[in-house]
Amino acid sequence: MADSTSEDYYTEHKKMLAGEPYTGGDPYLTLLRKHAQERVAEVAKHRHDPERYAPAICNLLGSVGDDKAIIESPTFFDYGKNTHVGKRFYMNSMCVLLDCARIDIGDDVMFGPSVQVYCAGHPTDPAARLTGLEFAHPVKIGNNVWVGGGAIIMPGVTIGNGVTIGAGAVVTKDVPDNVVVVGNPARIVKHV
Amino acid sequence: MADSTSEDYYTEHKKMLAGEPYTGGDPYLTLLRKHAQERVAEVAKHRHDPERYAPAICNLLGSVGDDKAIIESPTFFDYGKNTHVGKRFYMNSMCVLLDCARIDIGDDVMFGPSVQVYCAGHPTDPAARLTGLEFAHPVKIGNNVWVGGGAIIMPGVTIGNGVTIGAGAVVTKDVPDNVVVVGNPARIVKHV
Amino acid sequence: MADSTSEDYYTEHKKMLAGEPYTGGDPYLTLLRKHAQERVAEVAKHRHDPERYAPAICNLLGSVGDDKAIIESPTFFDYGKNTHVGKRFYMNSMCVLLDCARIDIGDDVMFGPSVQVYCAGHPTDPAARLTGLEFAHPVKIGNNVWVGGGAIIMPGVTIGNGVTIGAGAVVTKDVPDNVVVVGNPARIVKHV
Repeated sequence: MADSTSEDYYTEHKKMLAGEPYTGGDPYLTLLRKHAQERVAEVAKHRHDPERYAPAICNLLGSVGDDKAIIESPTFFDYGKNTHVGKRFYMNSMCVLLDCARIDIGDDVMFGPSVQVYCAGHPTDPAARLTGLEFAHPVKIGNNVWVGGGAIIMPGVTIGNGVTIGAGAVVTKDVPDNVVVVGNPARIVKHV
Repeated sequence: MADSTSEDYYTEHKKMLAGEPYTGGDPYLTLLRKHAQERVAEVAKHRHDPERYAPAICNLLGSVGDDKAIIESPTFFDYGKNTHVGKRFYMNSMCVLLDCARIDIGDDVMFGPSVQVYCAGHPTDPAARLTGLEFAHPVKIGNNVWVGGGAIIMPGVTIGNGVTIGAGAVVTKDVPDNVVVVGNPARIVKHV
Repeated sequence: MADSTSEDYYTEHKKMLAGEPYTGGDPYLTLLRKHAQERVAEVAKHRHDPERYAPAICNLLGSVGDDKAIIESPTFFDYGKNTHVGKRFYMNSMCVLLDCARIDIGDDVMFGPSVQVYCAGHPTDPAARLTGLEFAHPVKIGNNVWVGGGAIIMPGVTIGNGVTIGAGAVVTKDVPDNVVVVGNPARIVKHV
């Protein structure tokens, strides 16, 4: 680990947030992920304690639009602090958010169970992958979106307002406003 | 929360079970879901205690055909009591059952890991979704069915006897007896 | 349970490892799976204790190429001891490995979250399935492979070196070296 008085200590973190290739196994990033797991455990513990639940979610995430957010357990966030949710957010059980880049979620968004949001990826070129460098691209989800259970949202995807993502859909590219998408890969099946 | 002496206290629960639109965030329903999580935890705790395991599963579910049912952990049920399983039921790890409506499962049914059964849904019309109303349609699974790992079964689906659901299949409509279905969406690939 | 002095005690275990039909509910196999869950819990507990983490992973698995393997929690292995991983193995959260047959994983392999590897299966013929017999076929994954989140790898599949498995892919047959596969069922979309 770099000397803690050195700027180098935070270098991989800065690269990650800037969208540049970075080393995911960096000790500082590993520590941030450890702390996220501790905050996730607090959210699980206080699920039915009205005094402590909203503060626990605030403490887990980067920002929360109101005190009504619900995150069912078990769940997994890489960092938590890179995820920003709007008002009345609901996330069902067994979701995984790899928020290595920023995840922005609007108001009135619901996640079914086992939804996966991946900002992080690796090179598909095997030689490049061996360097250990990974990348992270931001994900943006608009207002009033329902992400069906088991859906997967890929790095860099932007989802519009009023969208429904079908259960088990794999969303590999941007989704415009007011549509329903389903399938692997996801395609538009309805305009609403 | 409505006055506990009032009939209104149970209104959303009644609507849910009647297949009418209801408010999922209703305090009484939230309390029922909390209790289900506590019973799920008991099942996990007693997995290898022969004296306590079958009673814990009986206590979690609406009904169980015999004392041989196995539910691996972690798992997630919305209510538990709306799920009815036959004889020799086996459910592998990380399954999610949103049993907001009745789930009927026959004898000799096996679930692979990460199977999802969703009775609950939301309007795909964004304006309707903002009302917070959701719906739940019953799911029925026949006798001697193998649901492959990661499969998703959608609200209102009926699956016949002697069926195999392929791993990762997304079952959006009814499945007749004695077939194998695979894919997203699932389609019949074999008659057995 | 058979007399513990009898050869019969281990019979189903031997059949399973030999690739012959076996009874998954056999008491000895059930005990092995119980022990695997205990070792999985140790891995989770020591995630950030450098002294105990690598030994806990060694103790869970059949073999490990170095002391750098990481297995995020929650996770599920049927046996653990049938899984062999190379150097610098990384497995993200909520993965499920049904290692009823041997799973061989090369060096520099990364699993995204919610990856499923299934060696075990059941007959698709309903009458045969009622016997309770299941089968297990080995899975082999080469060097420098990235298995994307939510992917499912089916019994008997061999994956080459330098491969990328897309998120949510369902891999039903062998994958050659240096390709990218995506979809359900997975098909080659790129040679690298």
